[in-house]
Amino acid sequence: DSVQLDDSALLNVGGARIAFTTDTFTITPIFFPGGDIGKLAVNGTVNDLAVMGATPLYLSCALVLEEGLEFDDLERVLDSMKSEADRAGVAIVTGDTKVVPNGKADRIFINTSGIGLIEAAVQRRDIAPGDAIIVSGTIGDHGMAIMALRNNLSFSRGLSSDCAPLNRMISAVTAAFPESVKFMRDPPRGGVASVLNEIVKDRQLRAKLTEDRLPVREEVRGVCGILGIDPLYAANEGKALFIVRGTDAEGIINTLKQTPEGRDAAIIGEINREFPGKAYIETTVGGRRILPLLTEEQLPRIC
Amino acid sequence: DSVQLDDSALLNVGGARIAFTTDTFTITPIFFPGGDIGKLAVNGTVNDLAVMGATPLYLSCALVLEEGLEFDDLERVLDSMKSEADRAGVAIVTGDTKVVPNGKADRIFINTSGIGLIEAAVQRRDIAPGDAIIVSGTIGDHGMAIMALRNNLSFSRGLSSDCAPLNRMISAVTAAFPESVKFMRDPPRGGVASVLNEIVKDRQLRAKLTEDRLPVREEVRGVCGILGIDPLYAANEGKALFIVRGTDAEGIINTLKQTPEGRDAAIIGEINREFPGKAYIETTVGGRRILPLLTEEQLPRIC
Repeated sequence: DSVQLDDSALLNVGGARIAFTTDTFTITPIFFPGGDIGKLAVNGTVNDLAVMGATPLYLSCALVLEEGLEFDDLERVLDSMKSEADRAGVAIVTGDTKVVPNGKADRIFINTSGIGLIEAAVQRRDIAPGDAIIVSGTIGDHGMAIMALRNNLSFSRGLSSDCAPLNRMISAVTAAFPESVKFMRDPPRGGVASVLNEIVKDRQLRAKLTEDRLPVREEVRGVCGILGIDPLYAANEGKALFIVRGTDAEGIINTLKQTPEGRDAAIIGEINREFPGKAYIETTVGGRRILPLLTEEQLPRIC
Repeated sequence: DSVQLDDSALLNVGGARIAFTTDTFTITPIFFPGGDIGKLAVNGTVNDLAVMGATPLYLSCALVLEEGLEFDDLERVLDSMKSEADRAGVAIVTGDTKVVPNGKADRIFINTSGIGLIEAAVQRRDIAPGDAIIVSGTIGDHGMAIMALRNNLSFSRGLSSDCAPLNRMISAVTAAFPESVKFMRDPPRGGVASVLNEIVKDRQLRAKLTEDRLPVREEVRGVCGILGIDPLYAANEGKALFIVRGTDAEGIINTLKQTPEGRDAAIIGEINREFPGKAYIETTVGGRRILPLLTEEQLPRIC
């Protein structure tokens, strides 16, 4: 009756097939270039549902507020949630608020849980050699915007979180190519490399990325270099990673590019059996580098 | 399409009528006589769904853990969630865990969101003079167990939280008396008096309670007296308040008494138009006392 999958549970409730997911957002700082914790909380859950092939419909919103949080800041966060929910076309239908003493929270924590309806034929299909790996836009924007802010990098102007709802972009793809998408995921904390590692780790497959195809903004690349972070491990909050049938990859890119969220979409690699590693990347100079699976401790709290 | 009601939202998803609710639990201490934060988190959400006339089916579980929380304590809380979910007949199907630095949370916060299916004819009906007010058992047990612990009251032996899933008790009533129940609610923080005030505040009705019918354990009465708390305002985590058609009240009491959770059920009052106040109580010596609506600041953090 219930199956636990990646980001959401797929359930049968009264004859309806629904996806159900939950996430608590504890990011610090709560305001950052390109967004705030409220925007993140709505879009994170919307995107978790969307990548399961569900149409996101309803969200809950549960707040833990630290005493002393300024009312203006709370209002700004709630306004942001409202406008992102409108943008994504979802309704926030139930809520809860707890206030805890100073020093017992970090200003504000937001849990959003979400319900989506699984309507159409989008299903997980077997990933196979020859499948293409697509990312819907530039990688690492969210993670590097936050890390630059935390590290007070003064030259980080232009960096901005990519936080955005992806449900419309994703349904454009699944409507046009209902049989082609084998896997979708938004690659948040841990980035593209971590999601690819998860995909291949229990399969007799390898994920090969091609370095010079990775869409990375110059500003992001710069901050990554200074902080010693690989953009492939940097967090995204408005990007989707797709594994698709190789023959449809170009068509899917064209569809993605017609949406505002997918305008920088690129085919970044392929699934194969060539190389006895996990995920790996072919570098611009022709080398090969394994992308290791990072542990929890190596990942900063950026969502 | 969506209606915001008391404890849950009622939604139509793909033709199914579902209830959806969320709650974050921040109680301190996390272990207490009769339960722990995990037991509370499961039953709180199960009961929010049950009082809406929904069959609770699926829960999410999102944890915020403070660095330094002992692994044994976490395991004990998770075991407790598992066993309460089994007891209530619900499945925990999706989850999330965030770890925040020491001093940025209070050991553990748990959000549970829940999905229930609305199957049968249980609907809100107009509350009217002559309706009976029923409580499913002794009041104030949870609140006074926590307050006694917090205040180190050494003579508080015997006090224990009433935390329990109420869905089976409630469906026994709604199955036997599908037309009679007009309102159900579990009266947590703020207690029976606060729920009654909410019911009558926008209606031209009064809620009259009869003091000597209130089921209150001796230990609870004792601690209430010492701390200056009226048991009618003390929190419950395993009790339901019902407003039912007066003519069926005795039958409903008999049904309740056949369930383990309802064995101390009692008719505690009635709805009338007699007295120009809000909720009020007729005292044992024949006086009448208004039960005021308390503000947030007067209510301790006990859930």
